[in-house]
Amino acid sequence: MDGESRQPDRPAHPGIFPTGKRGESLHRPGQRSVDFPVSVVLPAGGTGERTGLQTPKQFCPVFGRPLISYTVQAFERVSWIKSIVVAVAKENMDLMKEIIQRFQHRKVRVVQGGSTRHRSICNGVLALGEQEEQEAAEGEPKVVIIHDAVRPFVEEDFLFKIAMAAKEQGAAGAIRPLVSTVIATTSEGFLDHSLERARYRASEMPQGFTYDVIRQAYQRCTESDFDFGTECLHLALQYCGTNAKLIEGPPTLWKVTYKRDLAAAESIIKESLCSSGCVITGGSAQAVTLADALQKSAGALDMELDVIPDLLGDHSRYLLKECNFIQVSVNPSGLLELESMLADVEATNRAPLHPLVIIWVCLSDPEELSVSGKTPEFAAIADAAAAAKLRNILLYGIQLYQSKDAERWERSVMRVTEITSALIRERSPALVGQLLQA
Amino acid sequence: MDGESRQPDRPAHPGIFPTGKRGESLHRPGQRSVDFPVSVVLPAGGTGERTGLQTPKQFCPVFGRPLISYTVQAFERVSWIKSIVVAVAKENMDLMKEIIQRFQHRKVRVVQGGSTRHRSICNGVLALGEQEEQEAAEGEPKVVIIHDAVRPFVEEDFLFKIAMAAKEQGAAGAIRPLVSTVIATTSEGFLDHSLERARYRASEMPQGFTYDVIRQAYQRCTESDFDFGTECLHLALQYCGTNAKLIEGPPTLWKVTYKRDLAAAESIIKESLCSSGCVITGGSAQAVTLADALQKSAGALDMELDVIPDLLGDHSRYLLKECNFIQVSVNPSGLLELESMLADVEATNRAPLHPLVIIWVCLSDPEELSVSGKTPEFAAIADAAAAAKLRNILLYGIQLYQSKDAERWERSVMRVTEITSALIRERSPALVGQLLQA
Repeated sequence: MDGESRQPDRPAHPGIFPTGKRGESLHRPGQRSVDFPVSVVLPAGGTGERTGLQTPKQFCPVFGRPLISYTVQAFERVSWIKSIVVAVAKENMDLMKEIIQRFQHRKVRVVQGGSTRHRSICNGVLALGEQEEQEAAEGEPKVVIIHDAVRPFVEEDFLFKIAMAAKEQGAAGAIRPLVSTVIATTSEGFLDHSLERARYRASEMPQGFTYDVIRQAYQRCTESDFDFGTECLHLALQYCGTNAKLIEGPPTLWKVTYKRDLAAAESIIKESLCSSGCVITGGSAQAVTLADALQKSAGALDMELDVIPDLLGDHSRYLLKECNFIQVSVNPSGLLELESMLADVEATNRAPLHPLVIIWVCLSDPEELSVSGKTPEFAAIADAAAAAKLRNILLYGIQLYQSKDAERWERSVMRVTEITSALIRERSPALVGQLLQA
Repeated sequence: MDGESRQPDRPAHPGIFPTGKRGESLHRPGQRSVDFPVSVVLPAGGTGERTGLQTPKQFCPVFGRPLISYTVQAFERVSWIKSIVVAVAKENMDLMKEIIQRFQHRKVRVVQGGSTRHRSICNGVLALGEQEEQEAAEGEPKVVIIHDAVRPFVEEDFLFKIAMAAKEQGAAGAIRPLVSTVIATTSEGFLDHSLERARYRASEMPQGFTYDVIRQAYQRCTESDFDFGTECLHLALQYCGTNAKLIEGPPTLWKVTYKRDLAAAESIIKESLCSSGCVITGGSAQAVTLADALQKSAGALDMELDVIPDLLGDHSRYLLKECNFIQVSVNPSGLLELESMLADVEATNRAPLHPLVIIWVCLSDPEELSVSGKTPEFAAIADAAAAAKLRNILLYGIQLYQSKDAERWERSVMRVTEITSALIRERSPALVGQLLQA
């Protein structure tokens, strides 16, 4: 028993989407702030051999967005973090600038990385100094946080702890319990002895330093440290006599290393994207009845649905906070409602950060002709879906038929819920524009 | 650069499905064998606190099948492994027996685990001795391999190395490079020093021992070792004077620890399930043309499709090795072909190990009435899909229309390929029975 919470590798407040404007901080009541300038250096010069991927892992897309953009966002949403410097390999400078522009990052500057991790970090630290000289307003940052671009789930609470300890002690670093027993080997490849696990810890990221300590450490260290050293904490100890304060971090600090870890990261982001949705009824009694039934059955699938008549007035806040919209219409002519809703969602211009899902649920009279692959209604959905997809909005349709048979009706509602839940979970671009049958 | 291959965390020969009968070994030409009896102990008594899941992680389903069944299968398919003992907590004995029956495992016996990992392993080792006394045929196993139930991707090549080294040296264990720097902490929570990474390794699983060494180690060790010890290798050294041979293992040895690792495991299994498929044409010229076009465009999505006229004669081997079948029919009356193919697949009775996907691609004349949500054809697919799902076969339909316009036709074929690829990748039970439009 390690006393961790129920889903210890999931961030408590997933930093996947800001509920306010992009780049603005989310200052929750009770959240602690720091009263000194803090900047961040993200070394991202790696070439990703270990993932077995051609693209360096920090640039691998998760739902169409490079991993590093999630990490940048995790820092950007912290109000007391002033600036972020990303150090990337020369050949990726343009790519990184493109990412910053496309995902509207605001606090970020790109510098060229070095041939090793330490050289990249050092370039980032030096850039922070230059930046301040230029701006000459607030002086150098008091504390510099160093983090990996491939640990996207770092949380504000823990950053706060690192920043405070760094200011007090000069240096601070995240540690985690060892996952495997560590053993010493003989030169012939035999077991020499195993380490006593309780005395040792894995050193992780983030780490924090006062600007003076990290700058001096890099000024004083040797070429060999630059080439082969692995630990900033070690340099701070060796060259500045600063013993780092070690703070046990949460499992969310884990690092995307292998290709399989990208799937793991996707699953965490996916979970945060698909836990809730809102159902828009247009207000008609039949639509409200169906929406209420959907809301009830979605609960059984761990999805929380809010039912609202429209996205106007106070309800427009859903446009900013929701990733999943379900428009319930009575008969195919309800396509107009879908189009107006789509226009509302597009107008908020949130989609680039992550794919939004819109599901049009059409309640049809079984006596009437159904929508089929060749009807104008189907063509209209397919066309709207193709256009929406370009804006990172995934549009699907589900058709169900009214029934007076209570059991059949319940079964249909359950099917709509299951299909909805699958579409929201899988966010499959290949299936947009389909009209599924419940 | 660590010299690892392109996808280092994927098994080279994924042991997900045997190409022969279940439980039979796959003896590839050139594969090395051992000429002494080897048995396996899988301690699986864990309660899964670290995953943040209510089900212990070894019993968590991946595509409807508990993780431990994949691990058992990885051993079962190795011809020279004689028997496998799984040690589970008392409350999971029945569950484990059910898993063995349902997934038709043959070499496995269940014993009750102990209150700690060492006690569970010890119970497993003792059970191997008893088993032999009862059967009194081949004597005790020469070598016992100990592995974690939550490392399902272990490969035969590496097991061979461990078994051989264990026989020669008395003990052998897998090691991996350290992923994080290991640091020693002071009692006040400050950095004391960091370890020189080159001298240390992470100790992983599997480990192998001669039966005598592991039995003696457990006979001689203390209650405290049973309760707090972490390393069998350490016990072998301390109580038998046996220095284990350490062998660097591949990244595929990784352990499912957190909930996110289940998603990672699923992605690896998924990848092995969706890399290929076979297209059945029925032999008509139009169907063959479409199948050839699909085959060509699937290549661009990294999926390899074989095109065959039917599943008869020599082609019946596809029934044993493929997980994805695409039946191409010309016009909706081709439903008969689908039904006959479905019967063939069901008759092989392979589905329980993993979900099979069958996609019915229906090429329709645009002048004819299309299949819609209310036609008998649609109802037939939906009914067949509901029945097939119960047998772990996922059935979907895709409809496309003939076109003389070359560009439009190419676009349709590409759409069919994208939808097919998405259905195969996602294996979504909620979408079975749908007739999608290309």
